[in-house]
Amino acid sequence: MYTKELINNFKEIFTKDNIQIIAHRSPDGDTLGSCFALCEALRLYGKNAEVVCSDDVTPKLTILTEGKTELSSTFKPNCIVTVDVATADLLGKKYSETASKVDYAIDHHYTHKNYAKKVMLDGDCSSAGEFLFNLFEQAEIQINSKSAQLLYAAIASDTGCFKFSNTTHETHIVASKLLRYGIETEDLLKVLLDEASIDYIKFECDVINNMKVYDGKIVLLPVTKAMMEKNNIAEGETDGLSYLLRRIQGAKVGATLRESDEKIRISLRSFGDTNVAEIAAKFDGGGHVKAAGCSFKGDIESAEKALLEEIRKTLI
Amino acid sequence: MYTKELINNFKEIFTKDNIQIIAHRSPDGDTLGSCFALCEALRLYGKNAEVVCSDDVTPKLTILTEGKTELSSTFKPNCIVTVDVATADLLGKKYSETASKVDYAIDHHYTHKNYAKKVMLDGDCSSAGEFLFNLFEQAEIQINSKSAQLLYAAIASDTGCFKFSNTTHETHIVASKLLRYGIETEDLLKVLLDEASIDYIKFECDVINNMKVYDGKIVLLPVTKAMMEKNNIAEGETDGLSYLLRRIQGAKVGATLRESDEKIRISLRSFGDTNVAEIAAKFDGGGHVKAAGCSFKGDIESAEKALLEEIRKTLI
Repeated sequence: MYTKELINNFKEIFTKDNIQIIAHRSPDGDTLGSCFALCEALRLYGKNAEVVCSDDVTPKLTILTEGKTELSSTFKPNCIVTVDVATADLLGKKYSETASKVDYAIDHHYTHKNYAKKVMLDGDCSSAGEFLFNLFEQAEIQINSKSAQLLYAAIASDTGCFKFSNTTHETHIVASKLLRYGIETEDLLKVLLDEASIDYIKFECDVINNMKVYDGKIVLLPVTKAMMEKNNIAEGETDGLSYLLRRIQGAKVGATLRESDEKIRISLRSFGDTNVAEIAAKFDGGGHVKAAGCSFKGDIESAEKALLEEIRKTLI
Repeated sequence: MYTKELINNFKEIFTKDNIQIIAHRSPDGDTLGSCFALCEALRLYGKNAEVVCSDDVTPKLTILTEGKTELSSTFKPNCIVTVDVATADLLGKKYSETASKVDYAIDHHYTHKNYAKKVMLDGDCSSAGEFLFNLFEQAEIQINSKSAQLLYAAIASDTGCFKFSNTTHETHIVASKLLRYGIETEDLLKVLLDEASIDYIKFECDVINNMKVYDGKIVLLPVTKAMMEKNNIAEGETDGLSYLLRRIQGAKVGATLRESDEKIRISLRSFGDTNVAEIAAKFDGGGHVKAAGCSFKGDIESAEKALLEEIRKTLI
């Protein structure tokens, strides 16, 4: 159970009106599902509320945003809430100057850096979706099945559908309670987690056919601009490629290297005890033990060579 | 809560010794995880018990079978139990004559056709794993974390990791209780559900590059022997291909067509309202509304043509 203060802070939002809810930049299923679940709940309480985001929503995630790709302001807010936004920087370009005006931040990242007037944080939750459900329940705020479905989508997005180690016994309890709203999940999860365009699936095949395996346990996936152009893939669509690394039997450390403007964007994954944040730090990047990122100035071949050298030094 | 009779039947198994537990042929994660969970529980009660199966275990599923590929008898049983075996036919060649000797059948298929002396059945359970957990709990049989992990694997296997519509609020409650045993699940689920050999991943790419899309919503994946040989893929390894169909945006009906000895094996999937069992029936096959199978005598091109014609007739 959360403290009375935390629950009262949450209840306070429902006493306001003209509420703007901000999702983090490069929005994912957790931030969008949670923001829209909160928005729906506020509307159910007769409030004027809307979700905004600095960046566009990728096509598959529009299933969570009432079909909208662009989420921008239509009214002047009296109350600003962020959901799943761990730092002011993650508000994105459009809302970078909003940081000091944020009234409430609702987040589940232990790494949360305070920027809001009031913060509600539970780092033990798998996702913002799980935390938000707990808040609704403990504040006795009624939600409808639309909100429940959005929260389920949020949780499924951040846990890889209950597959990652952030899934706890409490995550499953929340999922169970959400299913009791009689929500449809199979088609929704298919769209969110499995489906891809034929162009994208063929692009993945090109990436696989270009895969480099070293010492049987280091896998590099170089992605050139030419590969993306050939298959009509936009930059934002390549984020799911790291999941491919997870599929490769025997891979201990994997990385995608993507040609971007004037630099190579590198995303690292560890499937063992190697700390990939250490590797990313060598290239002025950062992240977590199992997932980290950095960038490299130079061509993709040089990036591969430099990265391989650092991985070999660090690999456990 | 189950009836006293059902629970007493289950408890009876724990009064026997030299217990043989039979998994269904072409064993999957649910039958193997459940059988080994029961075996472990019986051993914890000091019983001599082992799991057998007519067919070999595929490499990735050996994570559930203590590394064993072949599961055969090492002792003469005094008690025979089947888990997840819906019909006598599914005992497979090696155990086809055992049907009349089966003492207890534990199953979750509504379609269960009675062959055992005593049947325990709950068709509302997502998986044999979920049902078995309920039995352990209600019969107050203590299990250890090894059994708990095997049951979690069984449930995750049959529900596509809580993704398919057989996942209920009760499935999540069971999953939550199993996680309280402190079991590791992330690495296990990676092996079971995501990982594939590089050969297999490249084989999938060949299959995708050979994909046929008709009317924007019918997808056929023809798989020739040459494609399998080129990538060192054995017949039993191609079962996961149907999952590829699920990934293709816009597909309403999909099918894999696989060259086998003297026939083409067809596996159908529906992602809408079309009943693919009806289509399979045209080729003397059968199955469920959303997943069905049949075979075709002739070459793969003729099979594609005949199948496409029937799909077009039935497609909703």
